[in-house]
This record gives sequence, C-alpha cells and structure tokens, in this order.
Amino acid sequence: MKKLRIGLIGYGFMGRAHSNAYRKVGNFFAVEHECVLQAVCARDAAKAQAFAARWGYRSVETDWRKLIARDDIDVVDICVPNNLHAEISIAAAKAGKMILCEKPLAMNGSEGKKMVAAVEKAKVPNMVWYNYRRIPAVTLAKQLIDEGRLGKIFHYRAKFLQDWTISADLPQGGTGLWRLDVKAAGSGVTGDLLAHCIDTALWLNGGIETVNAMTETFIKQRKHTLTGKVEKVGIDDACAFLARFNNGALATFESTRYARGHKALYTFEINGEHASIFWDLHDLHRLQYFDHRDEGLVRGWRSIHVSDGDQPYMKHWWVPGLQIGYEHSFIHQVADFLKGIETGKPAGPTFRDALETQLVCDAVLASAKTDAWQKVKTSAK
Amino acid sequence: MKKLRIGLIGYGFMGRAHSNAYRKVGNFFAVEHECVLQAVCARDAAKAQAFAARWGYRSVETDWRKLIARDDIDVVDICVPNNLHAEISIAAAKAGKMILCEKPLAMNGSEGKKMVAAVEKAKVPNMVWYNYRRIPAVTLAKQLIDEGRLGKIFHYRAKFLQDWTISADLPQGGTGLWRLDVKAAGSGVTGDLLAHCIDTALWLNGGIETVNAMTETFIKQRKHTLTGKVEKVGIDDACAFLARFNNGALATFESTRYARGHKALYTFEINGEHASIFWDLHDLHRLQYFDHRDEGLVRGWRSIHVSDGDQPYMKHWWVPGLQIGYEHSFIHQVADFLKGIETGKPAGPTFRDALETQLVCDAVLASAKTDAWQKVKTSAK
Amino acid sequence: MKKLRIGLIGYGFMGRAHSNAYRKVGNFFAVEHECVLQAVCARDAAKAQAFAARWGYRSVETDWRKLIARDDIDVVDICVPNNLHAEISIAAAKAGKMILCEKPLAMNGSEGKKMVAAVEKAKVPNMVWYNYRRIPAVTLAKQLIDEGRLGKIFHYRAKFLQDWTISADLPQGGTGLWRLDVKAAGSGVTGDLLAHCIDTALWLNGGIETVNAMTETFIKQRKHTLTGKVEKVGIDDACAFLARFNNGALATFESTRYARGHKALYTFEINGEHASIFWDLHDLHRLQYFDHRDEGLVRGWRSIHVSDGDQPYMKHWWVPGLQIGYEHSFIHQVADFLKGIETGKPAGPTFRDALETQLVCDAVLASAKTDAWQKVKTSAK
Amino acid sequence: MKKLRIGLIGYGFMGRAHSNAYRKVGNFFAVEHECVLQAVCARDAAKAQAFAARWGYRSVETDWRKLIARDDIDVVDICVPNNLHAEISIAAAKAGKMILCEKPLAMNGSEGKKMVAAVEKAKVPNMVWYNYRRIPAVTLAKQLIDEGRLGKIFHYRAKFLQDWTISADLPQGGTGLWRLDVKAAGSGVTGDLLAHCIDTALWLNGGIETVNAMTETFIKQRKHTLTGKVEKVGIDDACAFLARFNNGALATFESTRYARGHKALYTFEINGEHASIFWDLHDLHRLQYFDHRDEGLVRGWRSIHVSDGDQPYMKHWWVPGLQIGYEHSFIHQVADFLKGIETGKPAGPTFRDALETQLVCDAVLASAKTDAWQKVKTSAK
Repeated sequence: MKKLRIGLIGYGFMGRAHSNAYRKVGNFFAVEHECVLQAVCARDAAKAQAFAARWGYRSVETDWRKLIARDDIDVVDICVPNNLHAEISIAAAKAGKMILCEKPLAMNGSEGKKMVAAVEKAKVPNMVWYNYRRIPAVTLAKQLIDEGRLGKIFHYRAKFLQDWTISADLPQGGTGLWRLDVKAAGSGVTGDLLAHCIDTALWLNGGIETVNAMTETFIKQRKHTLTGKVEKVGIDDACAFLARFNNGALATFESTRYARGHKALYTFEINGEHASIFWDLHDLHRLQYFDHRDEGLVRGWRSIHVSDGDQPYMKHWWVPGLQIGYEHSFIHQVADFLKGIETGKPAGPTFRDALETQLVCDAVLASAKTDAWQKVKTSAK
Repeated sequence: MKKLRIGLIGYGFMGRAHSNAYRKVGNFFAVEHECVLQAVCARDAAKAQAFAARWGYRSVETDWRKLIARDDIDVVDICVPNNLHAEISIAAAKAGKMILCEKPLAMNGSEGKKMVAAVEKAKVPNMVWYNYRRIPAVTLAKQLIDEGRLGKIFHYRAKFLQDWTISADLPQGGTGLWRLDVKAAGSGVTGDLLAHCIDTALWLNGGIETVNAMTETFIKQRKHTLTGKVEKVGIDDACAFLARFNNGALATFESTRYARGHKALYTFEINGEHASIFWDLHDLHRLQYFDHRDEGLVRGWRSIHVSDGDQPYMKHWWVPGLQIGYEHSFIHQVADFLKGIETGKPAGPTFRDALETQLVCDAVLASAKTDAWQKVKTSAK
Repeated sequence: MKKLRIGLIGYGFMGRAHSNAYRKVGNFFAVEHECVLQAVCARDAAKAQAFAARWGYRSVETDWRKLIARDDIDVVDICVPNNLHAEISIAAAKAGKMILCEKPLAMNGSEGKKMVAAVEKAKVPNMVWYNYRRIPAVTLAKQLIDEGRLGKIFHYRAKFLQDWTISADLPQGGTGLWRLDVKAAGSGVTGDLLAHCIDTALWLNGGIETVNAMTETFIKQRKHTLTGKVEKVGIDDACAFLARFNNGALATFESTRYARGHKALYTFEINGEHASIFWDLHDLHRLQYFDHRDEGLVRGWRSIHVSDGDQPYMKHWWVPGLQIGYEHSFIHQVADFLKGIETGKPAGPTFRDALETQLVCDAVLASAKTDAWQKVKTSAK
Repeated sequence: MKKLRIGLIGYGFMGRAHSNAYRKVGNFFAVEHECVLQAVCARDAAKAQAFAARWGYRSVETDWRKLIARDDIDVVDICVPNNLHAEISIAAAKAGKMILCEKPLAMNGSEGKKMVAAVEKAKVPNMVWYNYRRIPAVTLAKQLIDEGRLGKIFHYRAKFLQDWTISADLPQGGTGLWRLDVKAAGSGVTGDLLAHCIDTALWLNGGIETVNAMTETFIKQRKHTLTGKVEKVGIDDACAFLARFNNGALATFESTRYARGHKALYTFEINGEHASIFWDLHDLHRLQYFDHRDEGLVRGWRSIHVSDGDQPYMKHWWVPGLQIGYEHSFIHQVADFLKGIETGKPAGPTFRDALETQLVCDAVLASAKTDAWQKVKTSAK
C-alpha cells in the first residue's frame, strides 16, 4: 500500500476533523493509499505536542516553512485562519506538495487567483475543504439533478443560520474567535458560511451571474482579544443576497450569526419544473424530495432517510436506518481525493472551483458596499 | 328541496359539533335535503333556550319522550351520556324516527344488540357518530387499502392519548365530567377513546378475532360531583391490548388519559407487504404514506397534505394547501348520511357496524378482568 | 340582536369564505350583531341566483351600483378582482356603507390613498381581508412579540410559495384566472401573495424602510381567455426582495408560483435576541417557538399545538388537541370587525393599514423595475 | 499510557463497529488506556487476515480457544452469534480476561446465569454491548428521569420496527442471516431487537414485573443456507407484549421485521406526571421533551438537538448543531468501560444487568407460548 504522508498545519476544530478522516478512511474505503500522520505544525510547541500525542502524529513543527521544506511530507493540509491560506498554499505548491486547504480558499478573489496559478503551474493535486458536498444526502441531490429529474430549475434558496455571536460580551480575535476578526477572516458570515452555500449552489446549479446583497454588523464594537482594546468590528454579522444563475434560476441566500435557536442550520431548497429538493444540516441524514410525476392522490414530500447501500457513500458504513454524522463528510472527501490521485481525475472542489465561490463572495461584498447589483467576475484563465 | 327536521337531544360539545354540521352541509355539498334545526331537548330549560337561540333551533323540549313523540321531527340525534343511548334509541326507533347516535353505541354489547334489533325492525336509517372515518386523510387511507395498495397487512397499531385527568383534584360525574363516572359512561378510555380506534380499525382492516388487555385506574378515588362524596373510581384510566385480526394481522391498541403532552393524539399505523400508512389526529390533514415500490434511491415516507380536489371530500372546500379541521368530519358524515337516504345505500357506521366495535370493547374489558385472551363475540343475527 | 345586512359583491372563492364566516360567527362568538345575508351581486344573474340559493342570500343584484344604492344594506363586501376595488369602495363610502374589501387594497398606492381618503371622509367602518392575522398561531405570535419576549428583532423572513402556474398551457384572464391578467390583478405574486406576507410583517414587526427586489416572469406569453389570443404576460411570476425594517431588522421576502411541491406555503420566521418564532400555513395550527431563556440542557424548538382555550380564539371552538382550519381565520375576522363596531375601537387592518402594505408593494415593484433599492413612501395624511 | 490489548472474536457488522470504537476512543476521550488491536479471531483465515489488514489488527487466530489462551490479550470481545456467547464467555472468564460480549447476553436466562456466575467468580470486568444507552439523547433521557423531572411514571412504550425479512425468498442461516436461524439466534426479534428495548427500559424505568406477549412467524418455512433445504422457521418474526413495571407504570413493547418503511425504527416514549420524553433511532440526535410546567401559552413538545457541549458526551465531539451518528454509541461505551476500570466503578450494563433483560425475554417468550401473563423471574444471587 502506498503511503501518503500528511503534514497538518493548525490543530483546531478542523485539524481534528481532518485527522479523524485520515485515520478512518482506510478502514471503510478500499483506497490504495495509507494516510500517514507524519507531522503537525503549530506555533505553540506544547499544544502541537499534545495534539500529536492525541492523534498519533509522528512529529511536530512550529514553523510551517519547515514543514513544507521536509521531503517526508506529501500533502500539506492547511487549517489556519484565512489570511494565511495564500502564502502557505503558494509556498507549498512551489515545494511540489499536494495541498488540501480549508475554506474559503482565500481572503478574496485576487489572492485566490494567485493560488490557483501556483497550484496549476506546479501541477500538484489540490482541493478545498467544502465538505458539505459529501454529506450523502447532498451528494444524492447532485445525482438527482444531474439525472435531470428536476427539469428546468426555477428557484434556489439557501440559508446558513447560527446564533453564537449575539452576546455583546464576546470578544473578537484570538483562539476560536478569529472568525470575528476581519484581519484574520477577511469577512464575516460571507466567507465563513455563505461560502459553503455558494460552493454547493455552484456545484448543483451552475454559475451565478449577478448578485444583490445587504450586510449588517449588529454589534459595532467588541473587545479585541489580541490588543485588549475595544475595537470596531470589521466583519459582516449577517448577509443576505438575491442572485440570478446562468440557467435563469432566481435565488435567495442568507446567513447570520443572530438567528436565535439555530446552531448550524444550513438549508437549501431547489424547485424545478418536475421536482423539488430540500436539505437541512441539522438533520443531515435526510433528503426531502417532491416529485410531481407521482400519482396525485398520494403525492407528497418524501422524507428520504439516506442510509441505504444504494445511496451515495452509504455502502461503506452500517446498515439501513443507521445514520452517520457530520464528520463523515470529511472522510468521504479524503476518500474521493485519494481516488482522484489514483485515477487521475481530480476530485472537486479544486482551487479553481473554489475560486468561483470566492468571486461570488467578492461580488456579494461589493454589492453590499455599493447598494447595487454586481456581476460576478469571470475566473477564466 | 326536501326538509329533514332534526331533533337534537343534548347540547354539549357534541351538540355543537352536530349543529354546526347541519347548518353547513348544504353550503358545501349538493345534497337534496335541507337540514332544519327543529328542536333541541335538554332537562335544563334555560340552557336549552340559550342553545336554541345561539344555533337557531326553532323550539325547545325538556323531556326527550316529548321530542320523540312530535310528528314534526324526522331525525333524532342523541348527544347524551352513554347510559341513555339504548333507551332513547329504542323509543325513537319505535316512533319511526331516523336516528343519529353518539358513540359508543351502548354501555355494552347486550344493550347494543337490542338497539340494533330495534332500528332494524323499525327499518329506520341509523348511524353512529364515529366521525374519524370522515377525516379526508383517513378516508384516503381506506381508499388506498381497498385498492390493495398495501398488500397483505401484517401490523396494525393505534393509540389515543390524552392527559386531562392526571390531577387527583378533578371530580367525577356532572357536566363535562360524566366521562369519569362509570354509571354514566360504562367504561373509561375503552368506550370513549379506544372505541374510536376500534371503529376505524374494523373499517380499514376487517374483523378482530381475539384480544388480550390490561387496564389501570391510576387514581382510585375521586370526589363525585353529584353526591359530593369521595367515591371509588369505576372507570379505566388507561387500557392497552394486543389483538389478532381475522386477516392474520397483529395489533396493539392503547389509550390513556395520563399521557402528559398529548391532548387528543389519536394515531394509527398500518404495515402491509408493499406499503404502510400513518395518521395522526394532531395533524389530521396529513397522511404519511410509504410505498416500497418507489424507486429505492428516492424512497421515503411521503407526507401527503390532503387538501387537493382529487382527495376525499376536498373538492367541496377551498384550494390545495388550505387545510380543514376537526369539525369537518361531522359535516362529511351528515353529507354521507343524506346521500345514504337519497340513494338507499346507507352510509356507515350503522348501529350494526357500531355493535361490532361494542363487542370488541366488551372482549377488551373482559380480558382485562380475567387476565386472559378473549374471543370477540359474534354479532351475527 | 342588532342586524347587520351584508351585500356581497362577487361569488368566487372569497365569496364563499366570507359567506361561511357570516353564517357561523354568531354560533361561536358572543357578538351583538346578527349578520344577515341580504344580497349577493354578480354580473351573471343565473350564477348569482345559484349562489344565493346555496348560501341563503335573500336577494340578488347584477349591478353593484344598485346594490350600493339599496338602503337595506349595511355592509358592502368586495370580492371582485383588484381593478374594481377602488371604484366600488369609493362609491360605497359615499353611500355611507361599511366596507369589507378583499386584499390587496388596490392596484397601487395612488388608488389606495383615494380609497383611504374616501372611507375616512365618510367615517365608515372599513377593513381589508388580510385574514392570516387571525390564524390563532399567528395571533399568538403577535401576542408574544408585543409582550417583548423576543427582545430586539434581528431578522424577519417570509415566503409564500405555490406551484399552480408552472404549465405553459394555463391561460391568463377569465374566471379563476384573473390573477394572471395584469389588467385585473395589477401585479402577480407581489399583490397576491407577498401582500399577505407584508401585511403580517408590518403588523408583527413595524414599518419597512427600504426594499430591493427582483422579479421574473418565467412564461412570457399565454393565451388570454377573454381575447382568445396569445398575449404577453404582464404579471410577475416570482418576486424576491431584501428589506430593512425601521427597527433595524433585516428581512428577506420571496414569493413564486413556480415552487414545485408547495401549494400555499406561507411561512414566516422571526429571530429576536431572546427568542424566535416560525409559522407555516401548511400546518397552520402549530407555532414553532424557541426561547433561549429555557435551561440549556432541554432547550429546543417547541412545537405548540395551538388548540388550547388559553390561546387566541380557541376557547370559542372545540377542546385541546382538535384543530381548526383555514376558513376560521375569516370567522375570527368578522368577529373582530363586529367587536370593533360594538366597542368603537376599529379592528385592523383598516384601509389605512392596508395602504401601508400597498406602498411596500409599490416600492418592491419599482425596485425590481429599476434594479435599485427603493424607499417605501410614507402614507402620512 | 497503559495498553489494553483487545482480542476480537468475529469480524461482521459488530466487529467493525467495535474496532472503530477502539481506534477512535483515544482521539476524543481523555482515557488512561490505549486500546491495542492485538488479534482478531475467525474460522476463515483469509477473511480474518483481510479484516486484520483493513483494521490494523496485529495478529490473527482461527480458534477462539487459542485466542483466549494467549497471554498478550487483556480483553476478549465476543461478536459471534448468540449460541456461542456462553461457552466463550465462561472460558474467557476462567482465563481471567475482561469480557465485552455482544447482546443479547445469552440464548436464555439459564445460560445467562452461568455466565454471570463465571465472570463474578473470576472478578473480571465485563460488559454487554447494549449500545443505545450511550446515544447522547438517550443518556440525556436517563439524566432527566433520574433528576425526577418526569415525576411518577405512568406509561412506557417502545417499538423496534424493521422490514428486511418480508421477502419469502430470503434464506435462513449463514453469514449475515444467522439471525433468522433459531439455533444460532435463540429467538427472532425478541432477542435481537426487543432485548435492546428492554435493556433501555430497565435502565430508565426500573424492573419489569409481569408480561403478556404474542408472537408470530409470518413466513413459516425458508430455505436454510447451511443445509440447502427448506426448513421450518423457528424464530419469531414479530413480538408484541404488554408489561407492568415495579413502579406501577404500564407498558407496551413491539418489534417486527415486517413493518414496511422502517429500517431500524427503535422508538421509546415515557409519560410522567410532569413531563414526557420521546426518542427515535432514525433521528437519534434529537430528544423530544414536553414539560407541563412550561407556561401554558407556549407549551409544546421541544425538539432538542442534542449537540451541545452541556449535553451527554457532546463536548468530546464537534460544535453545537453538528450531529454524530450511530457508531458513536460504541465509542462512548468503550470510553465508559475504560473509565470503569480506571475508577473501579464498573460501567453498565454488566453481565448481571444484561441477565435481567434476558429474564424478561424469557418471560416474554414463555407468555407467547402459554398465552398467559408471566412473572419475570428474579435474578437474585
């Protein structure tokens, strides 16, 4: 079995999710590579050591440049705040490493383009961790759409609702809170949550042409953890936008961290001529499906418990009726990444795919700033 | 338009539900009879007068015998406690009146047989108010079963859960509380709630052969409203039973007034070889339907919003998506009763149909008393 | 009992809903007026006669001017297409009639202002049939918000989704289809469906400041029933808009008749600092409520079955657990209208209230036309 | 870190679930032991080798006696059909091994008693894999009950519904199908599925006193995989029973493999004086909770998304809103087992706890055979 030696940068929430995926993929999928947890890198040596011990990483680095320089690392996995994605990715590409980068790809499209150029020049396999594509119910949605079951698509609507920043006492910046710091995150819910919604939407329904957005920052000032001072909040707490897809579909997107009662309520619904689909991250193992071609008398929304061996990814797990969870999306992504390098057909979203999402985010933020419709810029080479 | 002059006995909850049905049926259904609210009868003259004024009854009686003796009454509608059903029904039959009797038919099967004999001898149209048959979703269930869509039936399960008698301070007997008084009610949840479940079950799935029950009276003594004394409680607070249908299906039935959180949760589920059905009174306008013949990839329970013109009774109401409520089941029942007398094909459940339910109730109570399986007695003439 | 003599203009879907309300209100509510079905008016005499016979109207008119001229009519109820609301209302006001007008108030704000001026000058009681305010679950939402339970409101989102015009074969214009004819309807989903969403929103969450909309007409040409020719479709098939409320809340609104699988899915959700609310017309008897002040361990969305006597309007109906339906919202509205004239505190929405909704609709349509944010015009006298 | 060397017997569905748990527990829980996958044992050497390779077992055995005899094995994990549990367990106990045995404990209570005697004599830590206790929502239910939130318990109802054996073409016996072979399984749904329901019930609500059951074998004959002949089916396809708990609660239990549309629908509901609880394996990450002490106006069933760090086990996983799945119950069980041996307070269910379940199963089967109520035998030493 070939070995794929992973060098992980960052040890937070995503560091755990990815490590778990590397450790499990071979138990459940017939892949040709063994993922070896070669090194974890973090500035804080003690924390890196503790993480390595917990997860079985063979070594520790405190400088990502050293990690990239090592010749016993095949894959660099980037799990650090957004403002570091570009620099690390470009360096890793130059060093000839495969790259798995957390989402969003970059701080903005301009950075993203340089990253795409770097990985494409270096011809290294690359992928961005938009993991929701690989929730089986979401993959099933893709399959149903690609089979043409929905017919012409009229509407797309997506939301990602959370409620964890309602308190004005929450500081910005620092461990676990860098998502509130515009310097580290680039934007608020747009890059963090809507980026997920946009990635799924582009995948399921094709390109977005124009957008019209509004954003709001409900709490204008927060104490900054790093400076200790009360500073202006630079991120968007909430963002909603209208959009038109290339295929003529109309869309609404919305995200906020001020929706009391919702923790991670990512939902999307697609209405086609013949059929409609609804999915919800809070019950991620179900897909709601309505098919107008069903006999009228017994027509209704079907609540599909996506746990059958015929359904995407599920034959690798347990038996019908037994659900999997959030973390499995990462395992599926690693399995597909490995299959991609084994077959030569790269699994998406690649950096180039993720750049499309970045450009939509850019247009959304520009629209909110200008109070006007914005065309999404092209990513054509 | 022919007139059908109604004489209503009792003015409680059911008196209102029936009066509403008589008043509305002609607005929504093309029936050939006009229901005329001719007289309401109750011992308390003032209350009867007030009810007549509220609902438009043309006259008032305080003695049901006088009502029955009137020749300007075509239909006697019996909405009084169970212990009066037999006497009034038999007298009304002798007087040649059509009879609509509240459920359960009687205090027991023995009484019920006499009532059946009386109406059949008198050849008067007769019906019992097991109204749930005419909730559109339930009627749809009947239609699907009769079309053979479920195939062989393996399982039937029904529950009727309430929570209104948990307090030990609630007295027994008197207005609104006669259901706790065994002398007026005959039994507790068995005759009140399980009778509904059994009526539906016999209608949907045919005869029940044997039953095995347990009952419980959680609160052993309650103040009696009529005597003012604390007396032993004679009714069953809860009853659960196993059953076997003639068609080989296994069943569980349960009812209680001690199920915290449920007000009127009548549910049934039927599992057949090919398909299954679930219904729930708390969301009475929906039918849950699973068809195994659906393609595996998108197979799931369908939540059918029974509000389309193709579905039972619904073309008489509003437009798709707009639901009707509890009271409409009574309007449907009147519409069907009228159609029955217009076509000569009596609508069910007739007294004879309701006797079957009574005999199952008798067997259930006997089983609970003897701690043994009991065969359901035959009602054959 | 005082009599209130109703003159109904129009006999379609709404004519039935209103007639049913007039007939039932006195049976269930202790009102001081009896609603007398005095006359129904429609151009087609035969149809008007049939309707009168079905519902018990005492007389028939074929010219609404004659109806208004009659001195045995107290209330004029306008159930005709939108393009006739203004003319009839203004004439009825001049004749000193009370007016109940179907929604939307008018073809546009300009017409609406004249109507408001007319009824206010004539000092006649007036109301617009935005019936959803009086679904008990919606009224409960209003009560919870007014009690301050939600705290500061961050988000409002509403949708009204249907799927009945997806077929290109559906003609525009004529009986039952005037909603597709821009000349009769004024607009498509904006005036028909979003108007409902906006009325509820203004009532629950106060004024809307600015809007930003997009509309689409998916099927560009349809045969016109009246002309027999294929004509350009002038209405909006779908409309979505962003909005900002005066209280700082952000909103998204969307309506379409191209959402496969939804018949009348009017939903709204409100997220406040402390609590959130969700409601859905397809299960109109439930309110979903999340209160962050609940203990964390058992915190969750509560599915409130709004059928208890403590909850709005429900003491007038059946017993807990038994649901009412769509039509009851109209009965509640008549009950409140009567109470309004009895107490001198007019029940809303009055013409003036409904004008606010109209002005939001105007801004929405203007925004869609100009691709720009639009301020909602003031209705100040 | 201390090592705990696992010897796994069997490599089927449960072998995978357990191996996964051993591999993951240390990544997510701060346990003091490292689980070492020392050996896997199966009669088929090639399959055992493949399993070992897939999961990282260090060695392979084909005779369980040899495995038990090895001194580099600390824990014997028994994942073979029920008819082998007793022999292996008793031998392992004699060899001084800790034992983790799949459920049900034994073929019957008599075997079970010997097993309990063996492990108690040998004083070896022992546990039975009734994994559902450790679904966080179920553990939360336990916590709420133990805190007295429900008050006096009136009702318990549990079901475990599947539909995988409806086809008459399915053979009995052999790999994956031993559950249909009475010689290997001991019973059908009673030992396989109801055993889970009973274990949970005893844990949540205390001892069961008496039971009254019916069973059915819908398909009387099936081809036997091992003999190649059509043979009588000895298992129960369906079983339903009434029960009374020591605390006075009434119960209904039901299980079947003929409930079309349900794959693994294990549900339970508990109704107490003050509050009620409902749980459902198909949406295992939610607990439904109704508390009558909530204010009446906004009282409703709460849908608790059990994904918060305050809720059982969840602080070890991801962030609120992100659900875990079926497999995590096994990881929690291993974590608790390790904690048990670390603290000296054994985690349940021990063999002795599981014997109680076995004795209820015995009474259930005896009741079905005798058509009579049966007392549950005592397991007292």
